[in-house]
Amino acid sequence: MAQISFARGVPAPECLPVELLAECAKSAIERDGKTVLSYGTGLGYAPLREWIGARHGVDPGRILLTNGSLQGFVYLAQHFFALKPGGRAFVEAPTYDRPLLVMRDFFGAEPVGLDLDDDGLDPDALEHALADGGQRAGFLWTIPNFQNPSGRTLSLERRKRIVELAQANDLLVLEDDPYGLVRYDGDALPSLFELDGGDHVIYSSSFSKTVAPGLRVGYFVLPQALVKPLEAIANSTTISPSLLPEATLVEFVRGGHFEPNLERVCGLLKARRDAMLDALDEHFGGTGATWSHPEGGYFLWLDFPEGTDAGALLAQATEAGVTFVKGADFYADGRGRSSARLAFSFVDLDQIDDGVARLASLVGAAV
Amino acid sequence: MAQISFARGVPAPECLPVELLAECAKSAIERDGKTVLSYGTGLGYAPLREWIGARHGVDPGRILLTNGSLQGFVYLAQHFFALKPGGRAFVEAPTYDRPLLVMRDFFGAEPVGLDLDDDGLDPDALEHALADGGQRAGFLWTIPNFQNPSGRTLSLERRKRIVELAQANDLLVLEDDPYGLVRYDGDALPSLFELDGGDHVIYSSSFSKTVAPGLRVGYFVLPQALVKPLEAIANSTTISPSLLPEATLVEFVRGGHFEPNLERVCGLLKARRDAMLDALDEHFGGTGATWSHPEGGYFLWLDFPEGTDAGALLAQATEAGVTFVKGADFYADGRGRSSARLAFSFVDLDQIDDGVARLASLVGAAV
Repeated sequence: MAQISFARGVPAPECLPVELLAECAKSAIERDGKTVLSYGTGLGYAPLREWIGARHGVDPGRILLTNGSLQGFVYLAQHFFALKPGGRAFVEAPTYDRPLLVMRDFFGAEPVGLDLDDDGLDPDALEHALADGGQRAGFLWTIPNFQNPSGRTLSLERRKRIVELAQANDLLVLEDDPYGLVRYDGDALPSLFELDGGDHVIYSSSFSKTVAPGLRVGYFVLPQALVKPLEAIANSTTISPSLLPEATLVEFVRGGHFEPNLERVCGLLKARRDAMLDALDEHFGGTGATWSHPEGGYFLWLDFPEGTDAGALLAQATEAGVTFVKGADFYADGRGRSSARLAFSFVDLDQIDDGVARLASLVGAAV
Repeated sequence: MAQISFARGVPAPECLPVELLAECAKSAIERDGKTVLSYGTGLGYAPLREWIGARHGVDPGRILLTNGSLQGFVYLAQHFFALKPGGRAFVEAPTYDRPLLVMRDFFGAEPVGLDLDDDGLDPDALEHALADGGQRAGFLWTIPNFQNPSGRTLSLERRKRIVELAQANDLLVLEDDPYGLVRYDGDALPSLFELDGGDHVIYSSSFSKTVAPGLRVGYFVLPQALVKPLEAIANSTTISPSLLPEATLVEFVRGGHFEPNLERVCGLLKARRDAMLDALDEHFGGTGATWSHPEGGYFLWLDFPEGTDAGALLAQATEAGVTFVKGADFYADGRGRSSARLAFSFVDLDQIDDGVARLASLVGAAV
């Protein structure tokens, strides 16, 4: 029986533009080898920073390229928390777990979880937390589009309120948006960065979901005041990020491949999302389970019928050839016991119905 | 007047095998694109780890690839110093300055400088430091071959004593050896790693000096006990290092290019070292200045005549079109005031005599 992974939050292999990137890597070195193959600056390869700057309407001097956007988070945490015990940051609950590990294990900093609902992060929760000594929090980290793990998107009204709260309280927001361009339906909402103007918001994204994760190219669009300190941290960590993947991406975007490839990727993944929603309707309809309906990204959030032990279910499901990540892994406080993150990005399209059916057949027993 | 840089410790552009790497990057993606372009493990691209493991006679499971070996240092410092105030490490004095910044600025850890002479790090200094409460030091960091900045090489006898001291005191040694293969004459000495057997020594190197620094591929050969903790740190920082440069190097070494390229690079750099030693003899002979005679690497150390203010000289030299790095930058305690690190790796061969002559003409005035 084939293993069906609803756990892996990575693009299906056919999403990767292998042949194009092979050509782009070669021409990147041929075009600018002396620069690409030598040391660069801590900010990264200038031509890619210029392209990103133009897309976001900011000076390229504000773009920091990193070896994946997680490394940007490490740099930011370093800036706020290193050698300063007792640091805190506001985070969404549930949220992507790795940055929580970075905060705690690297810096001893405390994530302060703010609840989500179907419209994303609740601004009232942020307002309460700010009133409750929250000034001490270094920043708010939010994933506004197709959030990992919930698949939820922050509404326009809430974006506006969060920006107002950030401005009124001089709170920095890290807007972590790897999935924003991977949208299957509905209209894109303005980013917090756009609503704010860019003084209180770091916009963070990467090429992992739009081109290829193995390139490990993430970026920050920084408020001017943060450029120097984060560049210094980057410099002391890697001297410069890997330039070959960055230059390969320059060839890719200059060759006009970015938008057509993204459209192709969205087509491949939309079919998977649709298949998963259909399968949930068919196999979980009427069981008491509920799930999110993401308009893009890689994930949806499944609340099993009340009382289900997702950990026990995961053990049985793994034996039955289906994996997922249990909800509790995305909470700092042990909640999410009856929930799961289902990734539809990696699994073969024709395995989705089978995998969801297997889960449904097991769920009744895992209480 | 052309600017002559004895400051830049980077390879001259003609050292970079541009055309070969362009082909290798392309074939790396063509051969193994689905793996190279997706997420990997925190340890890095398996085929390159296998090649490195075979060269060092260790299981590939002990090889950690990083985005440059400086990042390996950051991971190691993280492991020893994060959330543990008051950490210390033994370092050479003088030494490469960036890791000192990492220790202090990132972790609040204190470098304990041990003096060098013409035979490298003095084991007596290490023994004294160990007796003097030195057990608290997390590790000893040494650059045994053609040290940055001094160009000095640790003698065989001292290597043996340092390994004995490490074993007797259960002290971890970080053997940082980016330059070891870039040897112009004399015989290679056994590494501390080889003398020890690998339980007390991390061997660290990179492809920055043998192939190309912009690839940002460094590596650690780890004692088994350190693999899991450092992999976890790597994972939380970048998920996996950039795989494209690592896979490009696999094509490069499998194509049989590593040794011939290294021989070519050594030829280009030996001519520069010889030219610099000749120029020093000619222009600084009889002035009271002394300098190291490196058998490899990028740097030599110049002690100007007593009383010279290297900082003042640098200002004048920069105006006269010649740059270097002043000695004090490589000491944690302000020593090195009359010294300089001269890099011969980057400057054009035919500029070396001119640059040294300009320095000599200024040195009398800079007291």
